[in-house]
Amino acid sequence: MGRRTDEVMDAVRDRIAARGLAAGDRLPSIRALATSLSVSPSTVVEAYERLAAEGMVRARLGSGMFVARSPAPRPLTTTRGDAERAIDPFWVSRQSLDAEPDAAKPGCGWLPADWMPTEALRRALRRAARAGDAVLTDYGSARGHAPLRQLLARQFAAEGLDVGPDAVLLTGSGTQALDLICRLLLRTGDTVLVDDPCYFNFRALLSAHRVTVVGVPMTPIGPDPASFAELAERHRPRLYVTNSAIHNPTGASLSPAVAHRVLAAAAAYDIAIVEDEILADFEPEPTPRLADLDGLERVLRIGSFSKTLSASVRCGYIAARLDWIEALTDLQIATQFGAASPVSAGVVHDALADGGYRRHMEGVRRRLGRARGEVARRLATIGLRLWTVPRGGFSLWCELPEGGSAADLARFAAGRGVVLAPGDVFSPSGRAGSMMRFNVAQMSDPRVWETVESGLAHGGER
Amino acid sequence: MGRRTDEVMDAVRDRIAARGLAAGDRLPSIRALATSLSVSPSTVVEAYERLAAEGMVRARLGSGMFVARSPAPRPLTTTRGDAERAIDPFWVSRQSLDAEPDAAKPGCGWLPADWMPTEALRRALRRAARAGDAVLTDYGSARGHAPLRQLLARQFAAEGLDVGPDAVLLTGSGTQALDLICRLLLRTGDTVLVDDPCYFNFRALLSAHRVTVVGVPMTPIGPDPASFAELAERHRPRLYVTNSAIHNPTGASLSPAVAHRVLAAAAAYDIAIVEDEILADFEPEPTPRLADLDGLERVLRIGSFSKTLSASVRCGYIAARLDWIEALTDLQIATQFGAASPVSAGVVHDALADGGYRRHMEGVRRRLGRARGEVARRLATIGLRLWTVPRGGFSLWCELPEGGSAADLARFAAGRGVVLAPGDVFSPSGRAGSMMRFNVAQMSDPRVWETVESGLAHGGER
Repeated sequence: MGRRTDEVMDAVRDRIAARGLAAGDRLPSIRALATSLSVSPSTVVEAYERLAAEGMVRARLGSGMFVARSPAPRPLTTTRGDAERAIDPFWVSRQSLDAEPDAAKPGCGWLPADWMPTEALRRALRRAARAGDAVLTDYGSARGHAPLRQLLARQFAAEGLDVGPDAVLLTGSGTQALDLICRLLLRTGDTVLVDDPCYFNFRALLSAHRVTVVGVPMTPIGPDPASFAELAERHRPRLYVTNSAIHNPTGASLSPAVAHRVLAAAAAYDIAIVEDEILADFEPEPTPRLADLDGLERVLRIGSFSKTLSASVRCGYIAARLDWIEALTDLQIATQFGAASPVSAGVVHDALADGGYRRHMEGVRRRLGRARGEVARRLATIGLRLWTVPRGGFSLWCELPEGGSAADLARFAAGRGVVLAPGDVFSPSGRAGSMMRFNVAQMSDPRVWETVESGLAHGGER
Repeated sequence: MGRRTDEVMDAVRDRIAARGLAAGDRLPSIRALATSLSVSPSTVVEAYERLAAEGMVRARLGSGMFVARSPAPRPLTTTRGDAERAIDPFWVSRQSLDAEPDAAKPGCGWLPADWMPTEALRRALRRAARAGDAVLTDYGSARGHAPLRQLLARQFAAEGLDVGPDAVLLTGSGTQALDLICRLLLRTGDTVLVDDPCYFNFRALLSAHRVTVVGVPMTPIGPDPASFAELAERHRPRLYVTNSAIHNPTGASLSPAVAHRVLAAAAAYDIAIVEDEILADFEPEPTPRLADLDGLERVLRIGSFSKTLSASVRCGYIAARLDWIEALTDLQIATQFGAASPVSAGVVHDALADGGYRRHMEGVRRRLGRARGEVARRLATIGLRLWTVPRGGFSLWCELPEGGSAADLARFAAGRGVVLAPGDVFSPSGRAGSMMRFNVAQMSDPRVWETVESGLAHGGER
């Protein structure tokens, strides 16, 4: 059974869901579908047979194919009950977001609440309660809270990216920033490059845009530039999505030479680049950035404050060329009406401007440095090998001993109230089956170590 | 020059932007493009000639059409400088959101800050400043803040829609609620029914989804049911988007007989319905609701708190079938990561649960009733005719005297710091050129009346 058969099956499911076809409605003939999808009739026959085996369609002798039952809305990926759910990008998201309050979450991608600058947040919220009536009740301006855009523009300028606040659009979240960019630049069927491995939700988001995702092999100093150029030539992608500073999940940091080669290839093939800077404040000193080298010609810088300040007070941003910002602002009005919440943006602004924030982040970086060292040593004692030594952040990307299955271990752990992040959810090519991402700030619960050790000893059986 | 030519020009611009074609890249031949767009070759010739006149493409003798220059990203609609911008749905949004602080905004769709329950908001924000660390910093659960979902489910049950909190998903805004539903149910090229006229941002949002929008003529008791059935038969739409309680912009309210006929036609043609309840709390007593009659079989109820509580603290919701809610939750994770901000949802919950909210809304309804009467009388004295007498809310939908152009009047007013909402931005068929929507709560500034009277007297000249 080939990939083309799967694609035809997906196309038929899509068509049923998209058209709202009901039981008894007729489906395209084998010949018509083969022509419209540019596949052989035998591929369509196989796809219809397998859909019939699933109970989705049925043949009537001499009169073609029909919908057998009204389908549920097409899920983005396999979605069954929580327990039976496939280990896909949503698995980790749902497990992390909807975990029981007492669950341990070494697989989640954020810091525990007691690592966060809660006092600065409380001060900012009390200040919000005293804001003017209009700030509390109005939509705010189309690009979002001006003082926060000014503060961000000053920060960017200090890092060598000299843009004004008009080049900054506030968004509902960092994820929404990427989503708006995809809406502007991508069309169904386009190809997008990501790192392999990459942040798992890039994969979920891109699948919602119905584009083809191709992974560029990651190295400890950034994406492999030769592969990048070769994949650019072969696939003519429209967009490349990456994070340069403390790459998620690997912890890699971009080298100047790699940055230059990737930008040169992107220019040669006219590829736009999204550089996600959500982890920038975790770096001890700044490493090269594509946006700074490029000066926002083809790079769009995005980020949010969810990892450093609060994921509850939601706010993200895009810094990009003015003509793109203008079009993205319209798109955000159409799909969200207005930018980030002015109250939330005000809280973010006040907390970032609070003298305590910088001191707090210095403390977090020191504390994370110690935790990375301790966790890496302890993982080594049970046979897990670090892929690279990150310069900052909370993630360690490790290989399980003897090619063990990270998905099996994650399922085993889920049954014991421990949320893990197995490698393949990060890997577009599915070549990270033995890798696991650990969050060193979420490893203090003894159950984490008991579960991982016991799971490894049992080969991941339930 | 016909509408088809415009469509072909748009299609070519789309293709250039979507594919990222650069100067020198070849465009489809006249014959190929005519076939793929189902238009005559002469239409394509005319479109290419006009694009060449714009400098976008150029012909090379004997070798076809080429991109002349790299285009800016494709805007959703015509976007020039603010002053030259076309009067389209974005015109009103941008003018309203980005108006100078001293502008008068009778065209905007919300109440002035001093009509809003700011004291309840301030109390809720002070309470948020005392919330637990996890509430202040974590993403929260995938469906959003449980107490707010429970409160909404209780309100729905009191209105006759008996669903549990699991059928409620919190979203970043009411607009985002509709956007998620469109992502789930629609595919490029589908047809969607809206009311004619309808809330202008429905048009902007649906254009971002690249679907065909068809308007159902509105009557003072709801959409015309015979037209609805006929358009359903002709276009086989996947979705119908409406608001039943105090329709925007007309102020109409749905009658029971119309509700029943629309639901029956939707069932016959398997059309899903989005019922936007953003103005529900402005009704003196509840009128029939499609969601209540249907029991959330095919109706999805959406809403937000932007008109009644705060547009700055952003939060919306979807109430729908559990299988749809499950798929929408995944979509929201992929495109936004997480639901509405837990801090914002907590503030909304506390403000709604505050005893003062209900009293406040009673006062707002009384005050709006007086304002509607006063403004309607004054508009009548200058020759504007009310289309219907709304049962509640802040909008009056009026016809200008002698078929005057509302777009001309709006341009005239924009030059004088007065934001108006001309009829055609609300009308998919473009048949509301003489209509204007006025917000009775934003008419106390004497400039509004001076400008409208002077504009009418001058026939809208600049």
